[in-house]
Amino acid sequence: MATDLLRWYTLASGARLVVERMPGTRSCAAVWMLPVGTASDPEGDAGEGEATVLSELILRGAAGKSSRDISDAFDALGAQRHGAAAVHHTMLSTLCMGERIEEAMRLLSLVVRQPHLDADALESVRAIALQALNGLEDEPQHLAGVRLREFAMPAPFNRSGYGTVAGLQSLTQDKIRAAWSRRARPGGTVIGMAGDIEPERARDMMERLLEGWSGSTEDPVETRPALRGSHLVQLDTQQTHLAIGFDAPPDRDADAHAHRVAIRILGGASSSRLFTEVREKRGLCYSVGASSALGRDRGLVQVYAGSTHERAPRTLECIMHELERFEQGITADEFRDALVGAKAGLIMSGESSSARAATIASQLWRLGEAMDLAQSAAEFDRLTLAGVNEYIARDMGAAWRAGRTQVTVAPRLVG
Amino acid sequence: MATDLLRWYTLASGARLVVERMPGTRSCAAVWMLPVGTASDPEGDAGEGEATVLSELILRGAAGKSSRDISDAFDALGAQRHGAAAVHHTMLSTLCMGERIEEAMRLLSLVVRQPHLDADALESVRAIALQALNGLEDEPQHLAGVRLREFAMPAPFNRSGYGTVAGLQSLTQDKIRAAWSRRARPGGTVIGMAGDIEPERARDMMERLLEGWSGSTEDPVETRPALRGSHLVQLDTQQTHLAIGFDAPPDRDADAHAHRVAIRILGGASSSRLFTEVREKRGLCYSVGASSALGRDRGLVQVYAGSTHERAPRTLECIMHELERFEQGITADEFRDALVGAKAGLIMSGESSSARAATIASQLWRLGEAMDLAQSAAEFDRLTLAGVNEYIARDMGAAWRAGRTQVTVAPRLVG
Repeated sequence: MATDLLRWYTLASGARLVVERMPGTRSCAAVWMLPVGTASDPEGDAGEGEATVLSELILRGAAGKSSRDISDAFDALGAQRHGAAAVHHTMLSTLCMGERIEEAMRLLSLVVRQPHLDADALESVRAIALQALNGLEDEPQHLAGVRLREFAMPAPFNRSGYGTVAGLQSLTQDKIRAAWSRRARPGGTVIGMAGDIEPERARDMMERLLEGWSGSTEDPVETRPALRGSHLVQLDTQQTHLAIGFDAPPDRDADAHAHRVAIRILGGASSSRLFTEVREKRGLCYSVGASSALGRDRGLVQVYAGSTHERAPRTLECIMHELERFEQGITADEFRDALVGAKAGLIMSGESSSARAATIASQLWRLGEAMDLAQSAAEFDRLTLAGVNEYIARDMGAAWRAGRTQVTVAPRLVG
Repeated sequence: MATDLLRWYTLASGARLVVERMPGTRSCAAVWMLPVGTASDPEGDAGEGEATVLSELILRGAAGKSSRDISDAFDALGAQRHGAAAVHHTMLSTLCMGERIEEAMRLLSLVVRQPHLDADALESVRAIALQALNGLEDEPQHLAGVRLREFAMPAPFNRSGYGTVAGLQSLTQDKIRAAWSRRARPGGTVIGMAGDIEPERARDMMERLLEGWSGSTEDPVETRPALRGSHLVQLDTQQTHLAIGFDAPPDRDADAHAHRVAIRILGGASSSRLFTEVREKRGLCYSVGASSALGRDRGLVQVYAGSTHERAPRTLECIMHELERFEQGITADEFRDALVGAKAGLIMSGESSSARAATIASQLWRLGEAMDLAQSAAEFDRLTLAGVNEYIARDMGAAWRAGRTQVTVAPRLVG
């Protein structure tokens, strides 16, 4: 629900803007979500990795300014900036003092609307993207998460953005220029701003900066269901890295908050069941936990554990035992503490302008509306112990566990 | 300099406390720095790793409360908490809403003053610490930094805290109980609190909680100068991970801020010389950068780059070329932008209560005083371009480069 401090708008271009003024905050953060996500990349060797290359390449010169000029201009504002490709969007973000945000947004608008996409810069960015892909095996924990997503999500929403070697090599200047021109459109764009900024001023500023920008791009559609199953990524690691994926509801689902509370108790905090049983009591592994990402249309629970090869079978057994036990529900104490923790976490992360800008932009995209901290906290207060336990009994039972996806990064398979 | 909002005290026990009230902030963060650092661990197989084990073990039950009780009590407050061992201190930190901070500090004080240090919990924590040590090879970038510190710093200040297998295995319950009792003393302890908290209230609260706590522990002394040199950590990695270390002044040095500005320009931001020349222009590697850690008595500059094996020699060459060129000094534009960026960064990180609590506690320990954001910004404003260039010419020249330490994590040595 919009308030005096939190407002959203559909701009003349069709782009949506959500702004939250944070009294007492001197910084201002912005997140510009462009509909250039990895899920809309050409498939595999036809150009997968395009969004990742574009997310860096657009910052390498725009509107007659060289890469160096752009970089210097952000520096002169004391503005941090970052580009990265996610499944549905390329996220451009900036953080600076409130009095500099208009200039920073002007620079970002040049980057979005008039990037040079030069051939030389493409070669450099391609070389870097190939190295990132090549270097994945040096981060086996991260690799387990990347592969889990590939198997646990339907295509093309299962992409990590690293692309393929042939896909990255297939990108030509003509191809990427055409892609940016086709994909980077106001329809599907959401901009979030939070901190030392008035909503109406932000709207007027963005209307000016986006004048004449038009068009929209198509939402990607599912081309193949999730493969699921159990997979070994054979690698000569010191530890066995286990990543297990389970279904989760989309964020707009009526059960989204019950799900969040359940996952928090299962594996989200240092007193969670997985942490206590697998790590603390048995010392089976250094890291273990569960987290949940609830997207607009689908979600994914990820359980991760890293243990010695020798302890890996017992670690897996212990995790599965906790998941079975979880079906019987949570206690009143667990429920009460999880609500306190979730609400305190909301308020504490709500003190960061960057976190707020990202949250309200995502909410507007996923839910069609944004919530201030009090409204978000109220969503948790609406829950009851019986309601969460009903959700768990219905949606986190044997069928849920049976539909899991497992990725093991290790020299050999566990169990 | 103390202000109405920022004050520090020496408590009756001898522990020091620094508190900053942050108007408009509802959270409160605390960092409790205990003089139980890795540098004071018994050497090598005699018990290295003790501080790391203790930093987790103390949270596993205290003052008649089980590990579960402690965990539940923090949860009921919605308080996050964390323990970790650094070179000079074990850092216990907590973050919660301001109205809960007194209860959270009461729990931490039980953990500090009356930990159970049970035999069962020791076995579990030891198993986890051994796994962390064993798992280092699965994180080659991190491993390069750990090994660099070992070679680039004098002993015992060169320790990462992972300990040794024999050192971890040598820890008995008697030994760790004696160690905690001897080492965890108010002399050498610094507590930082920031957020929704009044300095005087914090002082009264901590006086009550620490009543009867006494004693002090000896500061570790240097036992061996830095080994320096060039070292290969032979590992079957996909990328070559290069970590290069150089001397840096201690934080109390008159040149500390000139040094910070220099390193920011050399490799601290996405428009730094290393980032621009090595990554952007040449696409030699995915990650490259320089950072500097200025401690109480000594500092360390770390340059890191990860590239393909094939490009590693050119990456190293390009880094060394930039270091040579750097000796000629920075430009007026670079100087101006670095000051803007450093000051904006100060204010933006200053909006986080956790960051402020950690910063003011470290300042009190390293400098004997804490600074608010305006005072910290003024330190940068005191610099001149000529002054920074004088510092660079004097302290970042050929002798500085020649004294470097290099660690390569790769299948074979570069160059």
